[in-house]
Amino acid sequence: METLLLDADVVASHTPMTAVVDAVETAFAAHARGDAVMPPKSYVDLPQYDGDFRSMPAYLQAADWDAAGVKWVNSHPNNRARYALPTVMGTMIYSDPETAFPLAIMDGTTLTTRRTGAAAAVATDHLAVRDASTLGLVGAGVQSHAQLDAILTVRPIETVVVADADADRAREFVEAVSDRVTARVGSIPEAAACDILSTVTPVEEPIVDADVVGEHTHVNAIGADAAGKHELADDLLAAAKIVVDDREQCTHSGEINVPYREGRLTDDDIHATLGEVVVGEATGRTDADGVTVFDSTGLAIQDVAAAHVAYERAAAAGAGVSFDLLGL
Amino acid sequence: METLLLDADVVASHTPMTAVVDAVETAFAAHARGDAVMPPKSYVDLPQYDGDFRSMPAYLQAADWDAAGVKWVNSHPNNRARYALPTVMGTMIYSDPETAFPLAIMDGTTLTTRRTGAAAAVATDHLAVRDASTLGLVGAGVQSHAQLDAILTVRPIETVVVADADADRAREFVEAVSDRVTARVGSIPEAAACDILSTVTPVEEPIVDADVVGEHTHVNAIGADAAGKHELADDLLAAAKIVVDDREQCTHSGEINVPYREGRLTDDDIHATLGEVVVGEATGRTDADGVTVFDSTGLAIQDVAAAHVAYERAAAAGAGVSFDLLGL
Repeated sequence: METLLLDADVVASHTPMTAVVDAVETAFAAHARGDAVMPPKSYVDLPQYDGDFRSMPAYLQAADWDAAGVKWVNSHPNNRARYALPTVMGTMIYSDPETAFPLAIMDGTTLTTRRTGAAAAVATDHLAVRDASTLGLVGAGVQSHAQLDAILTVRPIETVVVADADADRAREFVEAVSDRVTARVGSIPEAAACDILSTVTPVEEPIVDADVVGEHTHVNAIGADAAGKHELADDLLAAAKIVVDDREQCTHSGEINVPYREGRLTDDDIHATLGEVVVGEATGRTDADGVTVFDSTGLAIQDVAAAHVAYERAAAAGAGVSFDLLGL
Repeated sequence: METLLLDADVVASHTPMTAVVDAVETAFAAHARGDAVMPPKSYVDLPQYDGDFRSMPAYLQAADWDAAGVKWVNSHPNNRARYALPTVMGTMIYSDPETAFPLAIMDGTTLTTRRTGAAAAVATDHLAVRDASTLGLVGAGVQSHAQLDAILTVRPIETVVVADADADRAREFVEAVSDRVTARVGSIPEAAACDILSTVTPVEEPIVDADVVGEHTHVNAIGADAAGKHELADDLLAAAKIVVDDREQCTHSGEINVPYREGRLTDDDIHATLGEVVVGEATGRTDADGVTVFDSTGLAIQDVAAAHVAYERAAAAGAGVSFDLLGL
């Protein structure tokens, strides 16, 4: 029996964003319904290398498919400067839950980028104003491209405002996307005034203040993924309707972790999980809502859902390389 | 950059037991010294398929090398009957701790078999009588071969007695090993009277009684790997010097889990971890000792150590298949 190897290009070309958004929404629903098994991420901290590994195993049951796997991913922030390697590299083992045979091994870096964009799109679909047409982005890296790609599948975005401390990077982003939207470089307040704002920076001091955000803006807070990081000012969060991907992960390492630990936000300030909103256990945007915030830390079920898309589509297309890893 | 793919045959031919025993002993020492990072195994239980997945991440630092990785492994006991597939299949991602690049992806099934045998050999080296020449095996499957291969590297075994409920399987085992040792099929009491006994069965009711074990026998209790399983009678354990691979894993799912949970064994009955014995923090066999028992549940650091052997040797030999999984 052979395991399918899917490299970064094959994963990229077989994970169309519409399909990933659908699969990730299904995963959040399964999570809320109790149809997913997702142990906490395990961390292997390596301070001697200024980095860490994380293992993220999960299973999820959808209406007509199920899927299991583990992503092994790292964060080594000095990789670029020291070794000309990415900060984050992921490898995913995707298995048949029924027999446990490893159906595929795939690049997990592309998968991470796409499933993170997809989660923001699911949140945006439930929390942004219906006719949202402007998108602000703070940060102009790879994930900002994924945010735009994904959000375009759920809202008719016409105008994009990109803010980045690196002006060249912001200009390159604008050039790269200008065939699809009207894009321009702007300040953080200009980005924050849009109907939708996605923040994708690793900062430890908030960079988006309450008074610059639009009255009905939906904010996807993507950047914070570790204790101590946050992008949004406390009073912005305090006034917002907050939806989290996972209560435990968000209070420990998500956008809300700092004010939560310091007692300025409590469990009562968390409206719901995204899964609860998707299945209708909690409301999405209502007419009464002002600013909404989606706190995204990234769940293993998102990876498994995106891997399902990659595997099914690549296998159907005859893409990837078959390899008899287990000798069966 | 390319990741090396090591299939089952390549892993088998590049993990000579002497090297794996050395690496696994090093791993136990690192564990005892605090030079390893090993989060608890994460379980993904799938009762609808009568199976489960486990993710086992770890890092370990030896004197002149370090290594990191994750093993994704399952137990689906009905796989053989239902799908003609093994109960246990493993896949290992082996990474450079410094950059996190995935150096190799390898068959984890062969790796599991060999590192389990190797741990028993390390325990045997520290706990069996010095001139042990007889080995009893209860169970005659793949792991029994690994037990013999590994224990032969630490003691001059001449005679092997194999007991198995399946007489054909026991005979086949004897035939397969008779070029290296004098082997014969025997009863459990005959196997238990040997200098060294390895039990490798998945039973839930003990099959080895206290009165059949030799006065100075060292027992490797390999079979129990889940709550409710045990192979050795309580009074055998109560009278023995017990060394565990990991206190938490053994009290939850190892040989001692049932009497421990029922209060017939306590923490005071555990002499030490194998790592503590290896580094000299606790004694191995002394002249005063009678029966000794090594309770083996299997640690992620053993997998990482065995993967280190497989990767280094395969890479040096030009074995395996290079594959650009991450597109770097």
